[in-house]
Amino acid sequence: MSRIKVQNSPAIRRMPTYLHKLLKMRLEGKLHVSSTELAEYMNIEPIVVRKDIALTGISGQRRVGYDVNELIRYIKNYLSWQKNITATLIGAGSLGTALLGYDDFSHYGLNIESVFDSDENKIGREIRGREVYDITTLENRLKTAPPDIAIVCVSNGAAQSVVNRLVSVGIRYIWNFANVSLRVPKGVIVQREVIAGGLAMLTVKMKLSSMKPGDTVEVEE
Amino acid sequence: MSRIKVQNSPAIRRMPTYLHKLLKMRLEGKLHVSSTELAEYMNIEPIVVRKDIALTGISGQRRVGYDVNELIRYIKNYLSWQKNITATLIGAGSLGTALLGYDDFSHYGLNIESVFDSDENKIGREIRGREVYDITTLENRLKTAPPDIAIVCVSNGAAQSVVNRLVSVGIRYIWNFANVSLRVPKGVIVQREVIAGGLAMLTVKMKLSSMKPGDTVEVEE
Repeated sequence: MSRIKVQNSPAIRRMPTYLHKLLKMRLEGKLHVSSTELAEYMNIEPIVVRKDIALTGISGQRRVGYDVNELIRYIKNYLSWQKNITATLIGAGSLGTALLGYDDFSHYGLNIESVFDSDENKIGREIRGREVYDITTLENRLKTAPPDIAIVCVSNGAAQSVVNRLVSVGIRYIWNFANVSLRVPKGVIVQREVIAGGLAMLTVKMKLSSMKPGDTVEVEE
Repeated sequence: MSRIKVQNSPAIRRMPTYLHKLLKMRLEGKLHVSSTELAEYMNIEPIVVRKDIALTGISGQRRVGYDVNELIRYIKNYLSWQKNITATLIGAGSLGTALLGYDDFSHYGLNIESVFDSDENKIGREIRGREVYDITTLENRLKTAPPDIAIVCVSNGAAQSVVNRLVSVGIRYIWNFANVSLRVPKGVIVQREVIAGGLAMLTVKMKLSSMKPGDTVEVEE
């Protein structure tokens, strides 16, 4: 059993934001982008942008900037977003509904193919254009062709048992929005999403900026 | 004008998760916790836990572990969560509703004091026990005692004009869930929350783990 440490997690977290901007530029017909332009958009220093982008393996073209299409391809490749990623969403509450409405997912190649809930008021209804299935049918619906990932948006109390069932049908990657630490077999990977992590970032920036009273301060990650 | 770089952002993002666990342990009457125990909960190496916790300035007590109450105090202090933080929530859609239901916020000292929306079907109604105010009354309601932070959960297209109004009443810290880069005056700090950042982390872990086929791999940040 190996253990791998992901380096550069702040850079990885920024990649979708670059991609969002680049996809928009492509729609606008722009062919090239400079690191300065991306830095302004991201509100970080150009040197950080250049380091982030270097991670993708693209070779910089300093005078005309990066080729927009090529950079999109390199970022997608770096994130393994070049092929479509299939997903099931468990829990169609307010957070699950919000995720179903996140337009960028489809641009990133994430296809939420199925939605499950245990609430009788939701089962059989459509939410954001997708039918909500009864959670009791999860195994039957997923076992023959399990999706790549499961997005878990159920209550904290329900999360572990739902994840056990997801693992039993062969799903190996869990994006967990419940505020619990999940026990999974070796080889199953859980990405725990902690909303309050962003609040922590904001309040640390508040603290740092208020350490220089009278001065205006910009804070970056 | 100074520019400050936030170091250790992965550690900062983990702090609320430690806090969540510690608050639960306190409820259960536990007085001490070891770094090994926290590492198991976080699914990271104990050395990473010790480094994270060292950032808070607490002195380790190796034999009995950390004092739970003391560690809670140090983490809260490190994050500037020792005093209550007041907030307004703009946008009571599915994501805003999900944030209103995030129980841990109150344990962390975040008080969402007001909720605004422009939707006539929501204005005047209660969502998760809070009345939704008409967005047109924002200035009148907030200008005399602006909250510490604003949580922006409006559509991408509406975000910039809402933020201009928030800044005009004196709010300096913006937690932005809209998928846009906001222009703000110097001295105003924006924390942009990009949900797809977590997806990027998950898919990079997928890629890393599949690089060793036949082996089971654990991946950590």
